[in-house]
Parts: sequence; C-alpha cells; structure tokens
Amino acid sequence: MDFLRKLRVGWESRKFVCIGLDPNLDKLPKHLKGDFFKFNKAIIDETSDLVLAYKPNSAFYEALGDKGIKFLKQTVDYIHKKNPNIPVILDAKRGDIGSTNEGYVKFAFDYLGVDAITVHPYLGRESLDPFLSRKDKGILVLGKTSNPGAGEFQNLNLSGKPLYLHVAREVANKWNSNGNLGLVVGATYPEELASIRRAVGDIPILIPGIGAQGGDLKATLEAGLTNKKQGIIISSSRAIIFASKGKDFSKTARKETEKLHWEILNNL
Amino acid sequence: MDFLRKLRVGWESRKFVCIGLDPNLDKLPKHLKGDFFKFNKAIIDETSDLVLAYKPNSAFYEALGDKGIKFLKQTVDYIHKKNPNIPVILDAKRGDIGSTNEGYVKFAFDYLGVDAITVHPYLGRESLDPFLSRKDKGILVLGKTSNPGAGEFQNLNLSGKPLYLHVAREVANKWNSNGNLGLVVGATYPEELASIRRAVGDIPILIPGIGAQGGDLKATLEAGLTNKKQGIIISSSRAIIFASKGKDFSKTARKETEKLHWEILNNL
Repeated sequence: MDFLRKLRVGWESRKFVCIGLDPNLDKLPKHLKGDFFKFNKAIIDETSDLVLAYKPNSAFYEALGDKGIKFLKQTVDYIHKKNPNIPVILDAKRGDIGSTNEGYVKFAFDYLGVDAITVHPYLGRESLDPFLSRKDKGILVLGKTSNPGAGEFQNLNLSGKPLYLHVAREVANKWNSNGNLGLVVGATYPEELASIRRAVGDIPILIPGIGAQGGDLKATLEAGLTNKKQGIIISSSRAIIFASKGKDFSKTARKETEKLHWEILNNL
Repeated sequence: MDFLRKLRVGWESRKFVCIGLDPNLDKLPKHLKGDFFKFNKAIIDETSDLVLAYKPNSAFYEALGDKGIKFLKQTVDYIHKKNPNIPVILDAKRGDIGSTNEGYVKFAFDYLGVDAITVHPYLGRESLDPFLSRKDKGILVLGKTSNPGAGEFQNLNLSGKPLYLHVAREVANKWNSNGNLGLVVGATYPEELASIRRAVGDIPILIPGIGAQGGDLKATLEAGLTNKKQGIIISSSRAIIFASKGKDFSKTARKETEKLHWEILNNL
C-alpha cells in the first residue's frame, strides 16, 4: 500500500497522531542501558492501535554512529511487522544534487524501507527527482519549519508574498505530477499553516511542534484540516516518549498519546 | 589545529584540490568487492601529498546502511592517521531544528571526528547554533549549489537581489561571530561565485562542480580567489575517483589529481 493510501486509511479511522521516535542517551530510562530499539519497541507496542504514523528522526540515531543506524533499521522493521498499514516517516531533512540524492533514496527506501521522507527545498525540484520518482513513497518538503528562527529566510518577502508560501505553492501546484508530495509546517505558526492550507488544496501536511515546542493544538486543527477533516499528521515526540523516565515510560507514553488523540477528536 | 588553520596551511603550500570520496557500488572496480574503505584508502595513499582536503559525501555511505557508516568512519580515521593536517569535510547538507541538530553534531564531530560539515540555510541561524558553537569546526552553508535547477529558489528576486546572495551576506556578515563559517558555491555558476566573493570578503568557499558536472576552472579561479590568492576549496569527485575502473584506479586518480592541481597553479 502506498504512503498516501496508508494515511487515508488512518484518517478514515480518525487517527491523526504521529509519534516522533527520537531517543536520546541523556533522556532514556536508565534500565534500558542505551538500547534505542528496546525503548522504541515498548512505545510501539503500547501505542500502535492509536497512531496514524511513526516518525523517527535520523539525527538521533546517527548520533550513535553505525550502532544507531542499526537501531533505526530494527525500529522500522518492527513497525512494519507490528502493523504494515502504519506508515513510517523518516525525518531526515535531506537535500543534495540529484546524483547524490540517489544515495539518500537507497538509505531511506531500500535499506530502511520507510514510507516517506522529509526533504529540503533549497536545491529545487530538479535535484529532488530521485525522491519524487518513487511514486509509492511520500516526499514531504519543508515549508515553514517549527523553530523560533524559522522566519529568517522563510518569511523573506518575494514581491508581497513570503518565501515559505512560494515554496508551498510550487510543491503543490507544479512539482506534484506523481501525487506523492506533502509539506512540513510547524504547529508553532498556525497563521502560516492556514495560509499554506488555503494555497495547496488537500495535500498531506506533517505538523511537528505540538508538545515540547508549544504549538497550539486547537489553532493548528482549525488551520490545517481539509474540508473533509483530513490531511494532517500531528507529530509529537518529547512530550510523549519522555513523559516518564521510569519503568512506566511506555505506559505513560500511551497515556499521553491517548490524551492527544482525544484532544484532537474533541476539536475536529 | 582548527579547520580554518588547516586550510590556511594548505593554501600557503599552494594546495587547492579537494577530492570527493564518493564511492558507489555500481562504479567501484570489481576486484574491490564493494569495500568502500579499501577503495578510499588506495586513493588517499596516492593523493594525500597533493590535496588541500578530502570530502566524503554522507549519502554514498548511508546507501549501504550501518555497513556504509562504518566505511565512512574508517575513512575519516585513516585520513587523520595519514596526515592530521588534512581537513576532512563531511558533505552531509544537514539542517534541522536546534535540538535535533545536536544529533548531527554528535555524528559529524564526535563519532566521525570530521573537521567541517556542509549545512542547509533554510531554517535560519538560530537552528544552526549547535553547529556554529563548535568553534574549531568549519560550518559550510549552502549558497548557490552546483545543480542545473539550483536557481529555482536560490535566484528568486528579493527587492532586486537574489536569495543566494542574501543568504551569503547574512552568513558572512551576521552569523560569523565565531569565525568558523564558510559557503558552498558551485563551479557551474562562476558569475554568481564572483558576486558572492565580492560580498563576503575572505571566508572559505567550497566549490564543487569541477569535473563531471562541467564547471569551468579558469572562470572559477578568477571568480573565487581572494586577493591573497586563497580562500577556495576546489572539489572534484567522479572525474578523479572513477577515472579508471581497473586495478590502476588509484594511480589514475593520482594522475587526475595532479592534472587538476597543476591546472589550478598555472592559472593562479
């Protein structure tokens, strides 16, 4: 099943939560002794019935070198085994020239076997061809990111409209001939999210920034949902996975996931 | 020795060539049976007296998963052992929010131990803090990239000046309080390179696109060199490392490196 279909199945069952699987040696419960896979597996086992998607961020695994990459591969394999209908988004924010992007495509889609990847827009559509031509995979392009300093370049004025909106429009209206594109827009900027949603129609928007980064959930839903009340992937990481550092970390992660899940459903 | 010092020592010995160590299973000499490290080691052994820097691109190693990451680590370790004064630039084109960039910093500088990394500007200076605060390391920000479609966003008009020039100016004039920043500008755009050099003073510019991508060397030197005839890192990958696919690949790589080295010196 391709990425977009998996999302649609999830949305039709009223699932919107994406858990960011971003382990970190400094924050892992002590008894796990740095085993990222054990940590992720426990969280997946507790939450797989509730989530729309999982989103491991490559940076946290790369921090451990080759050992971390193994943990990442084990994690992706385990999610697919647990429930092949749950899409895995590799948050990797890659973007190089075309011939080099082939390497990242192999890493993400052939070695790891994820369903989608996040990419930078700076090198333009031509550079992203190796990603875009994988029609069954989701390619999520950074629009407006969630960080405090996102506006420095993203809000630059291009004859009256900001750069992030120009990027979003090009992605949705000119790049999307294979129908496999989406955008990344931070929950920390609900007004920008609303203007992007108005400009891009129904394409999927991955929305990080709920939870630890302080994004407002109600405003995000209002701004991001399509007319069919679909189209959004609400991602939370630290607020779920590190809600407890004790032996109850996975049960606590489930509680936090349930809380976010119901908060979304009550505000649809 | 910090990155900038290593570069200066190289420039003072009139070294400018950077070899892109970008192995690829499809192009590796058959007798190496896919051993990226063996391939790199042979090239390093033949060329280390000639080069300013080496630049492995992370994508080619990631394509092999955890095994590739091990090859990358072995390669970086070997260069440091061979000659600790030759800087290693990890071409990784990373760029995430600040807390996540900490993971990439650990990967590049703590696990691999490289001297410099390439990064995307799209998330702004605030997001790059974890990189910038590593004062001994070089942080090379994408300005104008070498790919054919680079201009799609990079040439967008911001009240009369292109985005890439705005990015280059911000990087050189506002972000560089630790003196460890540089830029990436493709040899395929010598006019843009000239306008960037005029705007940014003497900061290092990494220039890919010579060789397989067809950048013009004379025009590049004229456009990129500082008044002291320094400041540039001329990178070639495929035209050097895949010049022969036979058992003589490393000797042929040396010949191509020598050729480029002398072509540069004859045009200074």
